[in-house]
Amino acid sequence: MVPLEQQFASDNYSGICPEAMAAIEESNHGHAPAYGNDPWTQHAADAFRELFEKDCEVFFVFNGTAANSLALASLCQSYQGIICCDSAHVETDECGAPEFFSNGSKLLVARSEDGKLSSAAIRELATKRMDIHYPKPKVVTMTQSTETGRVYTPAEVRALSETCKEHGLSLHMDGARFANAVAALGCTPAEMTWKAGVDVLCFGGTKNGMAVGESVVFFDRKMAVDFDYRCKQAGQLASKMRFLAAPWVGMLGSGAWLKNARHANDCATYFAGQVAGIAGVKLVGPVEANAVFLAASDAILDRLRAKGWLFYTFIGGAARFMFAWDTELARVDKLVRDLKDCV
Amino acid sequence: MVPLEQQFASDNYSGICPEAMAAIEESNHGHAPAYGNDPWTQHAADAFRELFEKDCEVFFVFNGTAANSLALASLCQSYQGIICCDSAHVETDECGAPEFFSNGSKLLVARSEDGKLSSAAIRELATKRMDIHYPKPKVVTMTQSTETGRVYTPAEVRALSETCKEHGLSLHMDGARFANAVAALGCTPAEMTWKAGVDVLCFGGTKNGMAVGESVVFFDRKMAVDFDYRCKQAGQLASKMRFLAAPWVGMLGSGAWLKNARHANDCATYFAGQVAGIAGVKLVGPVEANAVFLAASDAILDRLRAKGWLFYTFIGGAARFMFAWDTELARVDKLVRDLKDCV
Amino acid sequence: MVPLEQQFASDNYSGICPEAMAAIEESNHGHAPAYGNDPWTQHAADAFRELFEKDCEVFFVFNGTAANSLALASLCQSYQGIICCDSAHVETDECGAPEFFSNGSKLLVARSEDGKLSSAAIRELATKRMDIHYPKPKVVTMTQSTETGRVYTPAEVRALSETCKEHGLSLHMDGARFANAVAALGCTPAEMTWKAGVDVLCFGGTKNGMAVGESVVFFDRKMAVDFDYRCKQAGQLASKMRFLAAPWVGMLGSGAWLKNARHANDCATYFAGQVAGIAGVKLVGPVEANAVFLAASDAILDRLRAKGWLFYTFIGGAARFMFAWDTELARVDKLVRDLKDCV
Amino acid sequence: MVPLEQQFASDNYSGICPEAMAAIEESNHGHAPAYGNDPWTQHAADAFRELFEKDCEVFFVFNGTAANSLALASLCQSYQGIICCDSAHVETDECGAPEFFSNGSKLLVARSEDGKLSSAAIRELATKRMDIHYPKPKVVTMTQSTETGRVYTPAEVRALSETCKEHGLSLHMDGARFANAVAALGCTPAEMTWKAGVDVLCFGGTKNGMAVGESVVFFDRKMAVDFDYRCKQAGQLASKMRFLAAPWVGMLGSGAWLKNARHANDCATYFAGQVAGIAGVKLVGPVEANAVFLAASDAILDRLRAKGWLFYTFIGGAARFMFAWDTELARVDKLVRDLKDCV
Repeated sequence: MVPLEQQFASDNYSGICPEAMAAIEESNHGHAPAYGNDPWTQHAADAFRELFEKDCEVFFVFNGTAANSLALASLCQSYQGIICCDSAHVETDECGAPEFFSNGSKLLVARSEDGKLSSAAIRELATKRMDIHYPKPKVVTMTQSTETGRVYTPAEVRALSETCKEHGLSLHMDGARFANAVAALGCTPAEMTWKAGVDVLCFGGTKNGMAVGESVVFFDRKMAVDFDYRCKQAGQLASKMRFLAAPWVGMLGSGAWLKNARHANDCATYFAGQVAGIAGVKLVGPVEANAVFLAASDAILDRLRAKGWLFYTFIGGAARFMFAWDTELARVDKLVRDLKDCV
Repeated sequence: MVPLEQQFASDNYSGICPEAMAAIEESNHGHAPAYGNDPWTQHAADAFRELFEKDCEVFFVFNGTAANSLALASLCQSYQGIICCDSAHVETDECGAPEFFSNGSKLLVARSEDGKLSSAAIRELATKRMDIHYPKPKVVTMTQSTETGRVYTPAEVRALSETCKEHGLSLHMDGARFANAVAALGCTPAEMTWKAGVDVLCFGGTKNGMAVGESVVFFDRKMAVDFDYRCKQAGQLASKMRFLAAPWVGMLGSGAWLKNARHANDCATYFAGQVAGIAGVKLVGPVEANAVFLAASDAILDRLRAKGWLFYTFIGGAARFMFAWDTELARVDKLVRDLKDCV
Repeated sequence: MVPLEQQFASDNYSGICPEAMAAIEESNHGHAPAYGNDPWTQHAADAFRELFEKDCEVFFVFNGTAANSLALASLCQSYQGIICCDSAHVETDECGAPEFFSNGSKLLVARSEDGKLSSAAIRELATKRMDIHYPKPKVVTMTQSTETGRVYTPAEVRALSETCKEHGLSLHMDGARFANAVAALGCTPAEMTWKAGVDVLCFGGTKNGMAVGESVVFFDRKMAVDFDYRCKQAGQLASKMRFLAAPWVGMLGSGAWLKNARHANDCATYFAGQVAGIAGVKLVGPVEANAVFLAASDAILDRLRAKGWLFYTFIGGAARFMFAWDTELARVDKLVRDLKDCV
Repeated sequence: MVPLEQQFASDNYSGICPEAMAAIEESNHGHAPAYGNDPWTQHAADAFRELFEKDCEVFFVFNGTAANSLALASLCQSYQGIICCDSAHVETDECGAPEFFSNGSKLLVARSEDGKLSSAAIRELATKRMDIHYPKPKVVTMTQSTETGRVYTPAEVRALSETCKEHGLSLHMDGARFANAVAALGCTPAEMTWKAGVDVLCFGGTKNGMAVGESVVFFDRKMAVDFDYRCKQAGQLASKMRFLAAPWVGMLGSGAWLKNARHANDCATYFAGQVAGIAGVKLVGPVEANAVFLAASDAILDRLRAKGWLFYTFIGGAARFMFAWDTELARVDKLVRDLKDCV
């Protein structure tokens, strides 16, 4: 089959990066015990503990829907609430998965202009209702980097986690693009998570260059008790676990996780720079990770689509362009040229 | 890492077969739309339609727990019951997954000596209780080949499906080892499924030689309505779907699915033949697919374990040996020799 | 115990009306088969069929949380969405019950100024997202009379139901205060429900003067298939069903359901008239059923509370006063006098 | 309507006893805050604390299905297991309610000849499987008095609770007929529950003489945290709670709970004595509470049914006769005479 030329509709359009593929191939020798009792799984978990400078507990699941939903379900009961941003993926694009896995926990949605949660918003939702007819807020989920292409600094994360502690809330980080945030900020994974008060992180592997797979990292081992059973019951325990774990060994061991993210971020910055001067096209919000949002007339966007480009438009009509570990600058240049032609 | 020498505790200990691996590599070029809107997914679904000689609807999910649980949940309501064998994997080894995905459907368990369901057992469970205090039976699940290493002939499947129809029950086939059953019987996939009255099949890819992935095949498209939403909400929609679909293209297109299963079955038969004359070791049940159950004294089994062999023992103490697509006869011979030494 | 003097915080503060109490006493003779196989249950269901001029299917459950949640769960799957108003009780005051009973159906919330749904709002939510990552809208729930004390005319209901049909949506009516709406509009129960396109009605008995109990009325019997099993599994099948059913016989047979509602509505209108001229106190929205919302300064409301009055304040600070079947005008006059004193 | 003459098919056929009815009437004066913030609810909870000589936490729910299912759901996670007897009501007659409320917890069923759990059976199920593919046992539920009409002595309860503690299991008591067990044994409620190691008791009011209502008693207040939210979300929070609570005040304050149970037990004993000598009719098991099981030929039972008697037959064909708070000896005598006629 003829593969698709590069598109920037989603970083999920990219394939498997060489380091992840090599690890799959390398792990494909001989036999290995099933369900995670293999050396690759042990090795991958240790790699996370090293990366995060913490004796954390790590679980490997198939995708982000499950990673986030299972993590949230483990942090609250069905009659409790999950505070999130109105642009949070768990609210807008999971088809009710958090509610399904948790058996009914309600998402308590904070409005936000920029796609970032604020302490004020958390506080308002945490204190708005204290009666039995309303789900008791129990956990906050933040996305890093956000669905709007923004990043929280470690200081911002710490401010949120302090608000959480004041109100008895756990803090969960949806890190579908965690690597992009680390790359953008130049801090350590530890500084951005447990040192800033994050309880549980879902670290995304798929968008980062893997075929499939996300990891759920509990920084407090007590919170992880029986999470393996939870994964099993929910259809998220791989029998040939080595093929879910080995790519992490390849990614973390080689540093590809960070290199890939940096490249994606750099491409976003490059693209933003190239379109900056185009009349009729306006950058929406700063570019901090691997997403660029552009405001343009419907006519312009229609012409761009007519040239074969795929992209999503969001609230307010902004067109989103996502860059991945494999983005080719030549293809970005082509997009820029076509965009200029469309104006 | 030094890979494990071949073991026969589970066919999940095996790796990825060449045809599946080649398909992953081949599909890893350029970009592809996410969530199944890629040509590999289309191609894989078409390959199933060709294989089954039927315009069926096909979904690709991550593992067997999810495949079976989602299929069963789509066939009954939470207050309805699922008839199964007492040795069925959904009853014994899924940690409550069918109950979780269905939000409470109860498994109605038929006792069986050989691990096969009978029309009489279905009828008894279907008619035992007709009152509102008992979950109304709505679906029957059978495993082909069974957890006990047996196969149902197409005629047997048809007999069960006719009993199902009499009682308004759907028929689901857990085909974690479907290929082994087809290889054993020499019939066509169609003859063993929809032509014999099966409504939904979960066709196992993992044990058959893939890294990850099972397919859910609805022979009646009406039954499949919105199953894609069900998968999405339950965390079973892969974003980079091509890597879940392409291996199926490789497996079905090359015939590896059948070749792999034949090899596994042949190894089981070979092993059974080799141990047939050993005093103190008794074959439990006929060998019809890729499993061999042996009865032996605890002392013998302990000595075998002491020699480094891994295996599970089941009810009555029988030791199970499973053979896979990659089983090496030399290693089987080694097991036979060691077993003889232990007697 | 000294009973509380009448308060207007909620119509749930009222007791059991004489007609309902007499029916409990009357039904408390001799034995009766359990779980609804008694003549009272048959009689009550028939009374509904007569009242609604329709061969509807009727179920008696314990409370409104369950009635609405079970009805909605029967109308959609876990991966589908329920369109409702932002002030709908199912959204604001059920602690995630609809999500719990449906195993994760998401409420898709329409903003509304007056607490009423509009065809435009339904259409917008029904068509906003058509992708698999968003719960497919499947049912609309409207409250009659609304949580804001408003009523939909039969013509308005019909307009909504037509929009529903255009988009393949079922229409559910939360009738916790259904009787108040019928009393307000002077139409027949049939005109307000199935003749206007309502599929399922939850008819509230508790606020209407019963001790406990709501009925779920399916106007299309096909939609009611197995709803009895659903009730049973969800803990909503009363063993001594006659005591849940008999009060309905008393209420419907005597006309108390309508008399009670009229009285409550009249008291609301009376109260609204009495406070109309008070400076510093402003009626919020028209009074159409048994609720009155007043805007007043915090100082005024605090003084009113200090005089022993109980009431809730809602968004914007409006104080809500609810009138019940047993409201005594003398007590309303006392409230009016105290309110005047507070200004 | 002409009431049914007394039948002994179920103790649910009985009506409301005078003490419960008087309490409903007494509580039906004036207004009362909703959702349990009324003096009757406080009073009823205090009455339980007095009865059990313990500062326990008490919740009032609508029926036994919900009481037991909610209690069990609060004691385990969805991926954990509930050990029960094969004749336990939660296993045989709740249409999957425990699985529904818990979101998938599996019932691990112990076979029993007499309907009583044993320490050996608990131990076997608690240790049978320790792998992730099987729900981790977390709670044991025992029925007191049992579905087979037997009672556990406090010493037997203590033996079970000690086994539970050894294996990290909570102990739940389904007390749908708790009063009958207390009456039979002549011990105190405390001796039979928390003093013997029971963690949570569901105390049945309906069969004991109330119209509706069961109480959930947590002897360890920490285990009860947020159980009110759980009830609310599951549709088990009554708005006019006083009518669910007041009957308990009447029952416990007057001693009717015990008097009613004694009467029912006495009638069972009387009936057993009367039928003892009848040829062709055999008592199945000892009569310890309010149930009598009789073995007789189908011909005899058919003739008894033809005379208008209602009763259920169970495994092995035994006919069950249940006696209630209101059983009239004359009617028992009639049954005995008719039975003699049928032989």
